[in-house]
Amino acid sequence: MKQISMKNRQEYTYYLFLYLKNNDKDLFREEFLDLHPTDQSEIFKQMGEVKRKKVYQFLSAEEFSQLFKGLHLHEQKQIFTELDDVYVLKMLKELPADEITDFFSEIPEHIASYLLNKMEKKEAENIKLLLTYQDHTAGSLMTTEFIKVSPHITAEKLMEQLRQEGMSAETIYYIYVVSEVDKLIGVVSLRELITSPLDRKVEQLMKEQVVTVTATTDQEHVSTIIKDYNLLAVPVVTSGDRIVGIVTVDDVMDVMEEEITEDIGEFAAVKGALDLDVNSLIATKKRLPWLILLLILGMFTAGLINFFEATLAEVAILAIFIPLIADMAGNTGTQSLAVVVRGMALNKIDSTAFWRLLKREIETGLMMGFVCGGLVSIVALLIPQGSPALGLIIGISLFVTILFSTLSGTVIPLIINKLKIDPAVASGPFITTINDIIGLFIYFSIATSLLHYL
Amino acid sequence: MKQISMKNRQEYTYYLFLYLKNNDKDLFREEFLDLHPTDQSEIFKQMGEVKRKKVYQFLSAEEFSQLFKGLHLHEQKQIFTELDDVYVLKMLKELPADEITDFFSEIPEHIASYLLNKMEKKEAENIKLLLTYQDHTAGSLMTTEFIKVSPHITAEKLMEQLRQEGMSAETIYYIYVVSEVDKLIGVVSLRELITSPLDRKVEQLMKEQVVTVTATTDQEHVSTIIKDYNLLAVPVVTSGDRIVGIVTVDDVMDVMEEEITEDIGEFAAVKGALDLDVNSLIATKKRLPWLILLLILGMFTAGLINFFEATLAEVAILAIFIPLIADMAGNTGTQSLAVVVRGMALNKIDSTAFWRLLKREIETGLMMGFVCGGLVSIVALLIPQGSPALGLIIGISLFVTILFSTLSGTVIPLIINKLKIDPAVASGPFITTINDIIGLFIYFSIATSLLHYL
Repeated sequence: MKQISMKNRQEYTYYLFLYLKNNDKDLFREEFLDLHPTDQSEIFKQMGEVKRKKVYQFLSAEEFSQLFKGLHLHEQKQIFTELDDVYVLKMLKELPADEITDFFSEIPEHIASYLLNKMEKKEAENIKLLLTYQDHTAGSLMTTEFIKVSPHITAEKLMEQLRQEGMSAETIYYIYVVSEVDKLIGVVSLRELITSPLDRKVEQLMKEQVVTVTATTDQEHVSTIIKDYNLLAVPVVTSGDRIVGIVTVDDVMDVMEEEITEDIGEFAAVKGALDLDVNSLIATKKRLPWLILLLILGMFTAGLINFFEATLAEVAILAIFIPLIADMAGNTGTQSLAVVVRGMALNKIDSTAFWRLLKREIETGLMMGFVCGGLVSIVALLIPQGSPALGLIIGISLFVTILFSTLSGTVIPLIINKLKIDPAVASGPFITTINDIIGLFIYFSIATSLLHYL
Repeated sequence: MKQISMKNRQEYTYYLFLYLKNNDKDLFREEFLDLHPTDQSEIFKQMGEVKRKKVYQFLSAEEFSQLFKGLHLHEQKQIFTELDDVYVLKMLKELPADEITDFFSEIPEHIASYLLNKMEKKEAENIKLLLTYQDHTAGSLMTTEFIKVSPHITAEKLMEQLRQEGMSAETIYYIYVVSEVDKLIGVVSLRELITSPLDRKVEQLMKEQVVTVTATTDQEHVSTIIKDYNLLAVPVVTSGDRIVGIVTVDDVMDVMEEEITEDIGEFAAVKGALDLDVNSLIATKKRLPWLILLLILGMFTAGLINFFEATLAEVAILAIFIPLIADMAGNTGTQSLAVVVRGMALNKIDSTAFWRLLKREIETGLMMGFVCGGLVSIVALLIPQGSPALGLIIGISLFVTILFSTLSGTVIPLIINKLKIDPAVASGPFITTINDIIGLFIYFSIATSLLHYL
């Protein structure tokens, strides 16, 4: 049994590269085409332009289309520039509609329309339609290659239909039952079909409760539905229940992958800079802007302390708790942020949930603030330069700071989300820095007002 | 077409609760059983004990098992205590092996073994085997209800076999071809089977390159494989290529969900406290320990500054940049952390990748440090109390701080991961606080050594 693991993929790469070098077309084809398309892509990714050019010669457009699917969009764009029209068009014939759409939405518009004009009319119309849907929606994920049947035919006839259409459809495991006007009225799983008597009518087999989404449904919501209902695909319908496409589980898994990366972005201000393979220059170019933004924001903390310089000059000991206050402000804020970001991703936060959450976070902030404030005030009392007044100042400051940070950590991301601002602005570091400023302001205000007790 | 959305799920709940209240068994069954199991579970979750007890009466064990699947383990455990043995055993008959295993690994051992003794021998043996696999491995995710065939039978005979076994298998969309000794030698997708002539032999239809995992493969790796190869299921094999089970895509989606939550935990020190539905007391109980830990860690920053009090007393202006240095240390560290955590989750970081990454992060740190250091030194030069010496001190400090933070953000999580310590300790806040300490130490050391220039 030929199974290719991470390890022997390297061996394969070594030999395949050798065959390319020696122009040994037959050996290359024999070994390469025997691999799973995903492995083919992985190996292809490691080739330089010279090797790639040879692959284009050695493989037919149909064969190449298999591995093309497995490449990232930016890689596909790169490859695309190296291929001639004829090859590209042959290749596009083999690709599912949703793949082509993703690809076309990335390449320059005039090239896309140029290719569309050269494609089969029916196929081209189809792609044009798919291209109209917004990114991150069910419409942008769906494919139109699904199987639909009339409720009146028998299981046997349906099997017959599957034999003919089976290979061109994205999935044949769900068969969608539609009325004359394409209204979705039910679904038959291939499993039910297979295990049922051949003379049974589709309308007797079909499940009438079909979970559906619309073309504008957010992609994260689509993935939640497929996950919760354990589906292999979900039909996309119009407001009039006409079925226009399906989203399959494999597309949704990629969405979940994206989602993870987005979530991390929200905690680390590294939007689109999580790639391991880019060099330090690119990494810097992507990360530095965030740092500079945060640096500028951080200047405010400097300005703030400068503003309270008089207080600080009078009671130098106050300085030693500056980072502690700042850190705790950041930490509590991040905790709340995590809760909210998760809640938003699973879209669990409607207006009622919001008020309940806010109430809870305030209570939580009060309790956590009380405990931490108490602890730190004891410490401030016990240290050599400590005093009851100092303990009181630190304690109250930390208490208020934690309460405020919990609030801002809860509210800011939700506001930003409502205002449709780039959520990266709600990322941990930003909220942390904002909470630092609030926290230090509280700290020094209280300190200044209680100064005469010190 | 009956489709139940978030909105009309509430209506349903309202009416179904009414039927329960009025003891209207028929109406309840009619409406309730018409719903998708997932919706049944969602509605059931909202019932109090009284209503639940009625559901047990109204539904047969077989019917109830459908919604039982959709409940969380802690809910299943709760329900379990409310049911009598007979009902439970009937219900278990209906559940797939992997579901039962998850459930049994949660309930007290003596109860599990008690139930195992009452179950069918064959089924019980099966479960006992599955129970031996480690949590978070393919073995713990897999089910043993898959379809295997000999390579020598025809497509027609195979279809026949599917008709009989189809309903009991977890999936019939992949049929696994095995030798006499259960050695996995190929796979046939139901799609290929359907679209192929009936007299064709299985060995002619099957794909021989099968991507497999072993029972000990980490669950995240399993999900990556299913995702990358666009599979609906992956077979689990022994070292001798004997197939012992399969992991299906729906199980893997739950794993990805877990993974997202874990990742967030690593950035927010809120391990297991992301639930929106718990009250403030529980939320506090889960979050406070982390905060206190961080508070204690934070004390070190206070101690550190205290240690440099002399320097600070002499040049009070140094205080105003304390939070800036601390923040930037945290921010750069978090950026690197994000890159590493992501890399580990996609297990892309082997030893070669590690050194490449380390080199890159050092270079990145150098460049980012240079730019940010430069900027801040200019600012420190321009402010009223500013001076070239101050600018130099802040600039160099920030430069070194950023470089160190990039390093610790990269290395600490990897070390912790190697040492198999709870990764939550590598969470953003911890690394941030550590970087604060490093950063401030650098800052004050440099300041102290250059003191006579100020």
